[in-house]
Amino acid sequence: MPNQSIKLLMVLFLALFGLGLKGFATVADRVYFTTDIGDDATPEVLKSILSAKKGSIREIKFQKGTYHFYPDKGYESFVFISNHDNVLTRTAFPIDRQENLTIDGQGSTFIFHGLMVPFLITDSKNISIKNLSIDWQTPFNSEALVVAQDVANKTFDIKIGTEYPYAIRNDQLIFLKEYYEHSIGQSILYDPKRKAIAFDTEDYTPLTNLSKSAITRNTQSLKYKYSQDFKSEKTHPYGTQERLIAKELEPGLVRIFNHAKKLPPIGMILVGKGDQASNRVAPAFRVLNCETFNATNVTVHHAGGMGLIAENSSDLTLDAFNVRPSGNRMVSTTADATHFVGCRGKISIRNCVFNNQLDDASNIHGTYEEVVEQLDPYTLGVRIGHFQQQNFVLGKPGDSIGLIRLNESFDAYAKNTVESVQKINGRYHIIKFKDKLDTRIQPGDLLENLDAYPEVLVQNCTISNNRARGLLLSTPKKTVVEGNFFSTEMEAILIPVESGSWFESGSGANISITNNTFKDCQHSGFNRGVIRLVTDDESEHIAFRNIDIHGNTFEQFDNLILEVSNTENLRFEKNKITNSGTFPQKFPENPAVVVKTSKEVLFKDNTYTGKATQILSSDDPSIQAPLFN
Amino acid sequence: MPNQSIKLLMVLFLALFGLGLKGFATVADRVYFTTDIGDDATPEVLKSILSAKKGSIREIKFQKGTYHFYPDKGYESFVFISNHDNVLTRTAFPIDRQENLTIDGQGSTFIFHGLMVPFLITDSKNISIKNLSIDWQTPFNSEALVVAQDVANKTFDIKIGTEYPYAIRNDQLIFLKEYYEHSIGQSILYDPKRKAIAFDTEDYTPLTNLSKSAITRNTQSLKYKYSQDFKSEKTHPYGTQERLIAKELEPGLVRIFNHAKKLPPIGMILVGKGDQASNRVAPAFRVLNCETFNATNVTVHHAGGMGLIAENSSDLTLDAFNVRPSGNRMVSTTADATHFVGCRGKISIRNCVFNNQLDDASNIHGTYEEVVEQLDPYTLGVRIGHFQQQNFVLGKPGDSIGLIRLNESFDAYAKNTVESVQKINGRYHIIKFKDKLDTRIQPGDLLENLDAYPEVLVQNCTISNNRARGLLLSTPKKTVVEGNFFSTEMEAILIPVESGSWFESGSGANISITNNTFKDCQHSGFNRGVIRLVTDDESEHIAFRNIDIHGNTFEQFDNLILEVSNTENLRFEKNKITNSGTFPQKFPENPAVVVKTSKEVLFKDNTYTGKATQILSSDDPSIQAPLFN
Repeated sequence: MPNQSIKLLMVLFLALFGLGLKGFATVADRVYFTTDIGDDATPEVLKSILSAKKGSIREIKFQKGTYHFYPDKGYESFVFISNHDNVLTRTAFPIDRQENLTIDGQGSTFIFHGLMVPFLITDSKNISIKNLSIDWQTPFNSEALVVAQDVANKTFDIKIGTEYPYAIRNDQLIFLKEYYEHSIGQSILYDPKRKAIAFDTEDYTPLTNLSKSAITRNTQSLKYKYSQDFKSEKTHPYGTQERLIAKELEPGLVRIFNHAKKLPPIGMILVGKGDQASNRVAPAFRVLNCETFNATNVTVHHAGGMGLIAENSSDLTLDAFNVRPSGNRMVSTTADATHFVGCRGKISIRNCVFNNQLDDASNIHGTYEEVVEQLDPYTLGVRIGHFQQQNFVLGKPGDSIGLIRLNESFDAYAKNTVESVQKINGRYHIIKFKDKLDTRIQPGDLLENLDAYPEVLVQNCTISNNRARGLLLSTPKKTVVEGNFFSTEMEAILIPVESGSWFESGSGANISITNNTFKDCQHSGFNRGVIRLVTDDESEHIAFRNIDIHGNTFEQFDNLILEVSNTENLRFEKNKITNSGTFPQKFPENPAVVVKTSKEVLFKDNTYTGKATQILSSDDPSIQAPLFN
Repeated sequence: MPNQSIKLLMVLFLALFGLGLKGFATVADRVYFTTDIGDDATPEVLKSILSAKKGSIREIKFQKGTYHFYPDKGYESFVFISNHDNVLTRTAFPIDRQENLTIDGQGSTFIFHGLMVPFLITDSKNISIKNLSIDWQTPFNSEALVVAQDVANKTFDIKIGTEYPYAIRNDQLIFLKEYYEHSIGQSILYDPKRKAIAFDTEDYTPLTNLSKSAITRNTQSLKYKYSQDFKSEKTHPYGTQERLIAKELEPGLVRIFNHAKKLPPIGMILVGKGDQASNRVAPAFRVLNCETFNATNVTVHHAGGMGLIAENSSDLTLDAFNVRPSGNRMVSTTADATHFVGCRGKISIRNCVFNNQLDDASNIHGTYEEVVEQLDPYTLGVRIGHFQQQNFVLGKPGDSIGLIRLNESFDAYAKNTVESVQKINGRYHIIKFKDKLDTRIQPGDLLENLDAYPEVLVQNCTISNNRARGLLLSTPKKTVVEGNFFSTEMEAILIPVESGSWFESGSGANISITNNTFKDCQHSGFNRGVIRLVTDDESEHIAFRNIDIHGNTFEQFDNLILEVSNTENLRFEKNKITNSGTFPQKFPENPAVVVKTSKEVLFKDNTYTGKATQILSSDDPSIQAPLFN
């Protein structure tokens, strides 16, 4: 049916039925919601979606306007979401086992209230979301202005506006929301003049609210048969107590005692989101087990977690998918703007703005799972290592799985093919393989899905004013990063291999970083490069291959541009490096480039007008930067 | 197949295969586990059960012995359990959609570790559990001995044994378990000499650890579109802080400050289980949507919740289902011994011992759900009122639902029949009815399932040494309570109608209470009767009908035996009342019987040798107790 006829039909329908008596109309396989839907759009939207059989709705369209979504009549499910907390959540858009569905906001704004996941998209194919903005009435984070400091007594005072209700309980400052509350844990500084993370904030923050319990007794009698993850709060045998003490001086004015770092500068805005392991509860988009997902002209102003988290999905395109705060708020999303785990096919991120989020712009990786035991010649019991990866499914039948022993090599010592994955619990799965298992397998070895890595394109994006990194890239497939602007608090581009903490798998290979501008990145205070390839092991094995960095501009306030380790075949060519003078240098003794445990590293035709007195520091004298001008 | 042949076959099988190489053997539809199963029985038991198709296993038998069950490899699910917390839990026995299955422990002891539900039995028919004991390695509660008190400073000191590891965090005493921890909230006193709840404990306990936040600001800006349940912690706009302060005097010796009630007597044992809304996480048996469930010769020594919670099930028989603590522990289950919600058919509780649990021996009731709105002529949106009843399904297709307006009558003003129930979220369901809805329906009216009440038999049971009540009976079906022994801290038998707090529905009718012995019940300190019929509304409408109390013996230390209100046709006959002298009288001014807003109340042939100077207090002069001797 051509588009014109549909529009005509819809106009006719709406004319006949008085522009949506109950706020919606259905014509064949299309649903149209108008702003008459009521104060709470959740029940009507949910009713349409829950009553739709697979593939029966092709389009859900909204009249341009503002729609409020409350959780009270939202569809509830308990969800394990990677890199988030496991949460009992509600949604108005449970897009489950749907195909060929487009949701078009036509420029509408969707305002969410409380603990909701706006879009929960699972086991679906060819889903498109377009032309809408997502915001929350009340954000999951809070702001306060630093108004005084007392160096002698090591205290500082914050002014809390009336829009941020709070309580003081047992000397603890708690920010109150309608359906949520949080402590001042994980607080960081924003600079209101730049509306960005404050320069050097790592010297002052995060506020560290947790210290060990003052007293513990007889904990030696706490016994565990199996290894535990004591990062997960419930099972910590010693536990933590709050170290920061809050005293209200007058309504809205609170003094903070016992801060361990430098006192935050007056005039900065302290942004808190509460303690880790409880503050990632409401991402804007959750995409799981989907094929072909497109988000176009979508703005996420806020989320209590990530803007988009995609897991075990293929072919995802974000075009003008923007993450930036609304109004005068300092913060957009309280975690990464976007994050992709175990995805395949191609991830395209084009023409996006990722501003002011409290974590990376994009993190693309797989997941290591740990061998617990061999149950029979074909079957392994495996442990999911990180508490925020619980119930992540390593692969689907037919996927090629690599067996890794990281202290020997970053590459697989053997491969096998998935027959089935049985989820026993969030931490423990049973994986059956098609072939007999390699006899070298030992408990503690890691499994990596070699098929679940995507090609990546990040093009024409603006990544700035956020905490943490720009891009974390952990895929061996072809990756192109071109024409972007970066101004990030930590690395603009981090290419890591790590296993012990986050269990995020995937080495980097075949990466092209071209024609980007890097301005004043790594201004948080860490002594790290703007582009950094690094492993968390002390090994000298090769982890990264075929990296091409050319035609970029680095306008940095400090020296260190590039850190390379465990890399084979890196070209750094035709890049232009200047000193911006924006901030004072933190590490004037640094060179521009550090190379370690790498080979075939080539520098060519770069221009340098920075302040470093040493261009290159390398542990291999054959590596030189002769054409650095 | 006759039993003899099966045994023979099994013996043969075991002989051939060396008494279970891997700790189990399968013969046709029977599984046999031996003590060789390993240190952790969970994986092997779970494997058998998960691989069994509906009805394919008839018997799971265990060689007599001790079996440990750890959660690490347990089957995980997120469960809403009535009168418990909603919890992500693990089990080795996910008995789901099974039929005609018997689990026979042959006298074995099952020791559980951490957050597990030993038996999670759902959507099954004809399930029998027999000949086994359930205990936990580490209990969900903790004990400490009261060793000193300081009246001037209002403090008391407790001695904590090495078997109860603890921490002190921000002046709070926290008891540490392997997979759990709890505060000293909801603590109560046990008398170690009697191994029972201490006399008059309500004067001293519970420890009230929660008070309002010291300071709250700008909470007027917290806005809710729909009504909220602020008992549910997460949404409390003001929140609570801990009022009790703990200081360690020496290892194992802790002083408690700010206790609000009388100081606990030296020599008593303080038993804590932590704050409400987080301490009911691990019942021993959860039975949901089952037909015919039998537990015979089963002992529950402990559970972090109830011994058995059955919901929407029919025909449940407990024979020698005992709840009593192991070893020197004061506490058995941390909540009710047994609890039945929305059950039908017949509940038989025979030859059971319910000792030392921290709540009622049995509570049998339905659930009121509240009308939120009428969605169409056949459909209601309803709210589940109590946070521990979330996702309880009011009825199944064909059930008769009563519409109630309690301030007008305890009886339904209209009835209708369930067509379907759609679970939107734990708090909000959509119920479609077969007939057009009564035009009188208003938001706030209650729905009650008139078909989901059971006949009840409680016979030859011993109910003693526990906190709270013996039996809470809220069913209009025939109920027989005979030949039991009661010695409970509160009412031995409570027959209530209440709606505002617990939303537990069901009036009492056709109840026969005969030949029981009541000894020193209601010794907690409350001014209430041993048998009590009461509504929580001030109305004079009839709630209870046809109550027969005869042939019982009351050996009470205090006066008040029977409290009657809102009752029609109660006979109290041939009962013998003496004074035990066990404890000092708390309320010597009380009569033996109080009758209010009732009719047709008859007293006949009772003998009285108690201490009350007034036998009967009644608001109706026509009601008399002339044959009280």
